[in-house]
Amino acid sequence: MAETAESRLKSLGIELPAVPPPAANYVPTVRVGNLLFVSGQVSNAPGAKFVGKLGQNMTVEQGQQAARACAINLIANFKAATGDLERVKRIVKLTGFVNCTPDFEDAHKVINGCSDLLTEVFGERGKHARSAVGMASLPLGFAVEVEAIAEVA
Amino acid sequence: MAETAESRLKSLGIELPAVPPPAANYVPTVRVGNLLFVSGQVSNAPGAKFVGKLGQNMTVEQGQQAARACAINLIANFKAATGDLERVKRIVKLTGFVNCTPDFEDAHKVINGCSDLLTEVFGERGKHARSAVGMASLPLGFAVEVEAIAEVA
Amino acid sequence: MAETAESRLKSLGIELPAVPPPAANYVPTVRVGNLLFVSGQVSNAPGAKFVGKLGQNMTVEQGQQAARACAINLIANFKAATGDLERVKRIVKLTGFVNCTPDFEDAHKVINGCSDLLTEVFGERGKHARSAVGMASLPLGFAVEVEAIAEVA
Repeated sequence: MAETAESRLKSLGIELPAVPPPAANYVPTVRVGNLLFVSGQVSNAPGAKFVGKLGQNMTVEQGQQAARACAINLIANFKAATGDLERVKRIVKLTGFVNCTPDFEDAHKVINGCSDLLTEVFGERGKHARSAVGMASLPLGFAVEVEAIAEVA
Repeated sequence: MAETAESRLKSLGIELPAVPPPAANYVPTVRVGNLLFVSGQVSNAPGAKFVGKLGQNMTVEQGQQAARACAINLIANFKAATGDLERVKRIVKLTGFVNCTPDFEDAHKVINGCSDLLTEVFGERGKHARSAVGMASLPLGFAVEVEAIAEVA
Repeated sequence: MAETAESRLKSLGIELPAVPPPAANYVPTVRVGNLLFVSGQVSNAPGAKFVGKLGQNMTVEQGQQAARACAINLIANFKAATGDLERVKRIVKLTGFVNCTPDFEDAHKVINGCSDLLTEVFGERGKHARSAVGMASLPLGFAVEVEAIAEVA
């Protein structure tokens, strides 16, 4: 049987969380033509809230786990928007925002936690353009926030 | 008479400011196909310059007013680029940058000031994907900067 | 002979660097339709690594040189992705991230170093929508990072 994004998620033991309803006057995703824009996803996981500041009270490894949680939330949004992850033709672009101190120089390593999971799940079509940058702060003290653009069928 | 974005602006008592000419080698908007990319709009209003840093010398409510000013500047740019706000089919994506201290955790609440006005003016088609993040600083000390992508007819 | 982006680069004495292979699970550029998304390019030049923090240990002029290095890296990626800079129809959007202190208010002046070179090289089609913002930090301590969207033929 051919591997699919769903089968890879299952192999990894990842269950997609429900996409929470919008908390304000915005929406999780907007589609225009074949581009899907996904709102910034914070590092919130069922039973594990990744809050903290890199360079202060979190290690790079913990930051990578936080970024991985963002990836899972992005995938949950791809699924909710398309109904089928095989309709995600390409992860086009990520912007990875890392909550960190002014002397933290490893935002790119943190965001690898997100890039790595997207590539594990989607293979070559999971490889994206990206930026990784260090923020003064993030909403509710979350450690990482990642937004995405995907090409969808 | 059907409500339009213009009639809602009028009801709200909002007069769109003139779009200032570019101050350097960039432009306020670029259109590609049906996507309109709008340069980051700072929290500058006629007679009210929202400068400051959230968590230091501005309240969340003041930050929301600043973000509302960004929304008005975005709408002015939509108008200048399309000639008619009814040609704005959808606000696709906002990135909301909040000038704040490292311990400020309410960037999302600040950016609601922008999201709320866009939804008041454009209704359902004003609901967008978005990210809200906390910045070390913004140009000229402005409190908020918001960039946008819109779908236009 | 008509001026081209290549001839302008030559006049300016600029030789495009090789685009380094991806260091992790992402790629330098992704194309969807006629939109080319370019990963954030840091202020790294052959023989000149622009690291530092604006407002602390770099002048605005040095920041502009750093942003110019980002522009050269962006152009190198446009070339690698299209094979011919004349296929770049328009620079659509830049996001300019400046590594700076909380009281630095000139992120826009720094990013002018990038916008100016793109306009020198591409002329009117080099004029883009943009945002310029101040970051807590950037990867490896680089002073500037700029990401781009271009329209390509």
